[in-house]
Amino acid sequence: MTRTRQIVLASRPQGSATRDNFRLEQVDLPQPGPGEVAVRLIWMSLDPYMRGRMDAARSYAPAVEVDAPMQAGAVAQVTASNSDRFAVGDIVVGNMPWSEAAVVPADGLRRVDPAHGPIQHALSVLGMPGMTAWVGLTRIAPTKPGDTVLVSAATGAVGSVAGQIARSRGLRVIGVAGGPEKCRYAEQELGYDACLDHRAGDADALSAAIQAAAPDGVDVYFENVGGKTLQAVLPHMNDFGRIAVCGAIAWYDGKNLDQAPPLPAVWVQILRRRLNVRGFIVFDHADAQGEFVAEVAPLVASGAITIRETVADGLDAAPEAFLGLLRGENFGKQLVRVGPDPQ
Amino acid sequence: MTRTRQIVLASRPQGSATRDNFRLEQVDLPQPGPGEVAVRLIWMSLDPYMRGRMDAARSYAPAVEVDAPMQAGAVAQVTASNSDRFAVGDIVVGNMPWSEAAVVPADGLRRVDPAHGPIQHALSVLGMPGMTAWVGLTRIAPTKPGDTVLVSAATGAVGSVAGQIARSRGLRVIGVAGGPEKCRYAEQELGYDACLDHRAGDADALSAAIQAAAPDGVDVYFENVGGKTLQAVLPHMNDFGRIAVCGAIAWYDGKNLDQAPPLPAVWVQILRRRLNVRGFIVFDHADAQGEFVAEVAPLVASGAITIRETVADGLDAAPEAFLGLLRGENFGKQLVRVGPDPQ
Repeated sequence: MTRTRQIVLASRPQGSATRDNFRLEQVDLPQPGPGEVAVRLIWMSLDPYMRGRMDAARSYAPAVEVDAPMQAGAVAQVTASNSDRFAVGDIVVGNMPWSEAAVVPADGLRRVDPAHGPIQHALSVLGMPGMTAWVGLTRIAPTKPGDTVLVSAATGAVGSVAGQIARSRGLRVIGVAGGPEKCRYAEQELGYDACLDHRAGDADALSAAIQAAAPDGVDVYFENVGGKTLQAVLPHMNDFGRIAVCGAIAWYDGKNLDQAPPLPAVWVQILRRRLNVRGFIVFDHADAQGEFVAEVAPLVASGAITIRETVADGLDAAPEAFLGLLRGENFGKQLVRVGPDPQ
Repeated sequence: MTRTRQIVLASRPQGSATRDNFRLEQVDLPQPGPGEVAVRLIWMSLDPYMRGRMDAARSYAPAVEVDAPMQAGAVAQVTASNSDRFAVGDIVVGNMPWSEAAVVPADGLRRVDPAHGPIQHALSVLGMPGMTAWVGLTRIAPTKPGDTVLVSAATGAVGSVAGQIARSRGLRVIGVAGGPEKCRYAEQELGYDACLDHRAGDADALSAAIQAAAPDGVDVYFENVGGKTLQAVLPHMNDFGRIAVCGAIAWYDGKNLDQAPPLPAVWVQILRRRLNVRGFIVFDHADAQGEFVAEVAPLVASGAITIRETVADGLDAAPEAFLGLLRGENFGKQLVRVGPDPQ
């Protein structure tokens, strides 16, 4: 038996998630059973969708039970194996508890080759967030030559890849992000044609800025946030515009509900402009893995797509880092370094 | 010169459209120029989309100018021809002014063969409304075997064909209509598995009725109305549900704006259930004409698809019939018999 530490859901949030909704505890791990491996976690990913799993509400993913560990995508090293798919020392990526060590089914794991770059890329640009960006711009709201693409949460783990994919396809790309530092980074490092600061004013001010940055309108909106940004973008959607609804972080805590256009106006606009509004979740598109890697891996290898990371140190830091992510305090991909990286 | 009577847009509606927004006037018609024909109107179609053209707002179709004639799809007989495409006596269908006679370009007209059935079918089941139904269930919110399809304005010109197309594809079809008479007709004549009366109660009552009629949820919603019906349908949409937004008649006059779920809730539902919400207008799908006729014409010929008509007599009756249409007082396809039908 190995003793490890894990973070469980102590209680469901009432409105905003808080530190009290999490609890650190010690737990004994069994030996891996048939088809299982024991791992030590190295990198853990924090993502906005996890907020949804803290609620009891029916969602695309089952809710985390109260007193059960939170779950995350993680990169880990195999420490004991009862599966012929993995050997001790292998680096793997897959779904794991928020913990320092775990015993998990080998079935859900994929090998990570450290020769191909930083292993934590399997949690960002070459992992779930990167594939989310690709699926959004390829299957959900497919881009066409000449399109203007607008990306909210433009410097986030998903948004930054979406922006860079759109740019690599030769499109005009407008970002919306929170604060001048993120906007500068979006324009100077990520190659956005323009990035607009949603904190600089109200929805009308943001709408005016979009008008200036996209005078011919917006063809594809990669939606991560809802709220004021959605309100500002909608009037600029062109005929046959496509909206990939990937997230609505502004509304996740039950906040900012007044920052929304009335549904009747939106519905009539969907009709008149023949918009296509489509929600998606990357887990439904596992079959796209090959196509995604074929387009994006070479762009990462060449440096055409880069990813910025915010790293929290140690498992104990995960709840605070997650709450900061919900408040938009991260800058790029939010990771937790749970244990030493062998690279 | 021929003298004729026509109905013009006298003023733009402030809120609800009223009789005062229309004016009957006499006008002199010129001789048809090169490529033009003179026609006498027989059947004129009244459709909810015309309400949008009465506003100055940017829409998919140009607004009707104040003092210019209202426009409609119409079936007419050629009385003089300056085009080698049509001869005197031919029956044609196309866009025409609300008038007893007109001079129009031959280019926009299509011949109607009286041997194929009632000529006014070119304005309903085999015309724009029928094709709207087909495009919605084929290109916009494509049906799949096993789907449950819900159609609002279920007995209207578009909805009645949508319901019958869905039924002919072997799907479970639920209608929503206004009043017991329409619902009885939908179930007994149009073959809906169930039709729910939205006038029987509030949105919660309608939602409960949908739950009972579609216990496994709704896969495709053919949306004609918005308002309370949309509010009641949304919670029942299944994962990967599709909504074809064809109309939103409840909101056209700027009324019932309180009968709408809040946008944040809808947006999060689009995300969690991976809904695809898509607005459309049949005029963008002229290339579908052949496919549409291939599926629907045999169903009309065999009697598997029928259409009920409400006929207003004489051009003078058009404004009142149109206002009644907006209030849901028509039953099936609203037509105006402008002149004698040679059939």
